[in-house]
Amino acid sequence: MSTLQGNVLVAQGGGPTAVINQSLVGAVLESRKFPNVDRVYGAQHGVRGVVNEDFLDLTETTVNNLEAVANTPSSAMCSTRDKPDVDYCQDIFRVCQAHNVRFFFYIGGNDSADTCRIVHEESAKAGYDLRVIHVPKTIDNDLKVTDHCPGYGSAARFVAQAFAGANLDNRALPGVYIAVVMGRHAGFLTAAAALARRYEDDGPHLIYLPERPLSKEQFVGDLKAAYDKHGRCVVAVSEGVSDPSGQAIASQFTGGEKDAHGNIQLSGTGALGDLLSSWVRNETNIKRVRADTFGYLQRSFLGCVSEVDQREARDVGEKAAHFAVSQNKSGSVAIRRVGDYAVEYFLAELKDVARESVEVPGHFINDAGNDVTDAFIKYARPLAGELPDFARISAPAVPKVLNK
Amino acid sequence: MSTLQGNVLVAQGGGPTAVINQSLVGAVLESRKFPNVDRVYGAQHGVRGVVNEDFLDLTETTVNNLEAVANTPSSAMCSTRDKPDVDYCQDIFRVCQAHNVRFFFYIGGNDSADTCRIVHEESAKAGYDLRVIHVPKTIDNDLKVTDHCPGYGSAARFVAQAFAGANLDNRALPGVYIAVVMGRHAGFLTAAAALARRYEDDGPHLIYLPERPLSKEQFVGDLKAAYDKHGRCVVAVSEGVSDPSGQAIASQFTGGEKDAHGNIQLSGTGALGDLLSSWVRNETNIKRVRADTFGYLQRSFLGCVSEVDQREARDVGEKAAHFAVSQNKSGSVAIRRVGDYAVEYFLAELKDVARESVEVPGHFINDAGNDVTDAFIKYARPLAGELPDFARISAPAVPKVLNK
Repeated sequence: MSTLQGNVLVAQGGGPTAVINQSLVGAVLESRKFPNVDRVYGAQHGVRGVVNEDFLDLTETTVNNLEAVANTPSSAMCSTRDKPDVDYCQDIFRVCQAHNVRFFFYIGGNDSADTCRIVHEESAKAGYDLRVIHVPKTIDNDLKVTDHCPGYGSAARFVAQAFAGANLDNRALPGVYIAVVMGRHAGFLTAAAALARRYEDDGPHLIYLPERPLSKEQFVGDLKAAYDKHGRCVVAVSEGVSDPSGQAIASQFTGGEKDAHGNIQLSGTGALGDLLSSWVRNETNIKRVRADTFGYLQRSFLGCVSEVDQREARDVGEKAAHFAVSQNKSGSVAIRRVGDYAVEYFLAELKDVARESVEVPGHFINDAGNDVTDAFIKYARPLAGELPDFARISAPAVPKVLNK
Repeated sequence: MSTLQGNVLVAQGGGPTAVINQSLVGAVLESRKFPNVDRVYGAQHGVRGVVNEDFLDLTETTVNNLEAVANTPSSAMCSTRDKPDVDYCQDIFRVCQAHNVRFFFYIGGNDSADTCRIVHEESAKAGYDLRVIHVPKTIDNDLKVTDHCPGYGSAARFVAQAFAGANLDNRALPGVYIAVVMGRHAGFLTAAAALARRYEDDGPHLIYLPERPLSKEQFVGDLKAAYDKHGRCVVAVSEGVSDPSGQAIASQFTGGEKDAHGNIQLSGTGALGDLLSSWVRNETNIKRVRADTFGYLQRSFLGCVSEVDQREARDVGEKAAHFAVSQNKSGSVAIRRVGDYAVEYFLAELKDVARESVEVPGHFINDAGNDVTDAFIKYARPLAGELPDFARISAPAVPKVLNK
């Protein structure tokens, strides 16, 4: 096995997560240990920083600083929504060549994996020896091949803690509470609301994912039934939930802002929650109706992290160094579940992870399309970790005296 | 000093907080120690549960259960928005009489203090010996007399952690981020966003409280200036922020739902955030504009509690038992700050705390009306506690090679 000698370049792309800096720091610290690595660079603002040569020399960052950064949410090297085409990737490869970068690690989702794939192909075509590793990251948990994605567990934990609290609030002051959760095409994060339940009648009582169409009739009907049963109702809805025609329900309200990938912006607005509230107000006699949109808190809130997620995010960063620097390979780091709960890491082909994404599989969704199954709970609970403890009062009733 | 012998009744009113059950459990456990207390009852759903005699016998609740409840957010005995008039309070007093309740503790805000005041007066008029204690609780921090209110510190901590994370997210993917914080008339909770800052250019860059009018012109002007300076802008806005005519800006968008007190509902909708976003979109060239509304998470999120707040909430519950059961007094438990940081508790007159509320004092708000002062930071930081650590990367820049 020939050994490449040169520099490492690491960058972070797409939406931040609570643990994305664990991957960064894992990759940096592990890379610095290998004698065939000269310098470890970090590009600012992802691939845009690569083509602009906006690099920091992470060889000269203290371990204390890096460890503090590792525990900090949101991409410390800053990020970008740029989705490079072949020309852009050729620029990336040329910058790598100019800086004798032999190992390029890109922490991101399926678009970032695709960037890695193209950069790897273009450098190979040009005969430049460059090892490219995609390090998985997304709160959406929608990457192919891997069992789950670093970043998801912490976001799932936030969603679960939020619903656990909202359920207690709704129990104290009964009514309808609707919360909109991130997830354009994949409902994994919304599904994590189910982890909030402890007592049998705990909310969320209804969970709607983008994988199943949702009509106004179903929504109002389900909600009335749950409200009649519990005297209250807590609902989790994915921002990407679609009507039976396949149109995202939120898309009609966002003023048409589109992101760099041409997708209609769903987050950063309370419109979907307010629409669903209006359905309840107009179609039922329920008076107290509230809607929240969890928004950016679910991916960046300071101080809500799953320990398993934190550890795995660190590990996939370290494995990037092992696979590229030590084993001279390119690919996408992936997670395989090998126990309850245990994982191991392996290297997937870049082409198998790039571009396409996955949705919540059918056996994780109940037949009515308004809840998740126990199989999902079993899948997700170890990723989010056990929630903080909470309890109801257990006490006997006092006999009435006046009985008015 | 004569000693009353009889039962204790405790109830929780108004909006939940993260630590309201500490006060409940403090009152219950401390009351159970006194030989002149026969039974300790808890009313379900506040004063409504009192008049309906919906009591649990908390004399027969295990310490383990109570301690678990103490660490659970949101009113474990459930709450109510009922604001009793004199007739209602006479019903309360009659129920107390029927159950030989001699000590009534009501955990709540200024409305709950007013209920305590009336119940106390009516029982005195009727010659029934009843000690009534108001136990302070509100995330709004707007009670008179007391230095601050249990519940505020934890909500402030949530807001600070949320803005710390949102600021890091906004730094990674620059744009405008607006978040709407609870607080109808008092801006204490919104002001706590300032606790999120560590580095000099950290957001929130602008903070708007209901204590100062806000025009569209000022908002857009301030925002442009901050955006030009930082290349991004994070804004904290109170849900109760008003235009120069004194009209709550949010009030025109909420479909007119009013709460039991006749107040227009401001929370549970994303309308204000979306309106402010539209101002930025329409009046500037800034492309990436996002608005979140923190909603109910800020008062009930599971797992975000200030230790100081938790301790003080417990203390004011225990002090209720000391003042009423041991010292035979009625009143409102209040906090006096006696050090940096240290407090002591005292009993205020019910009439001095009832009904009216306070606003953020002038010396806590900057002259431009778009930020808080250092005096506020000094006041609020010990209440919210030190935030989880976070850091930026400290590393030298790498010289460019291609310089394209």
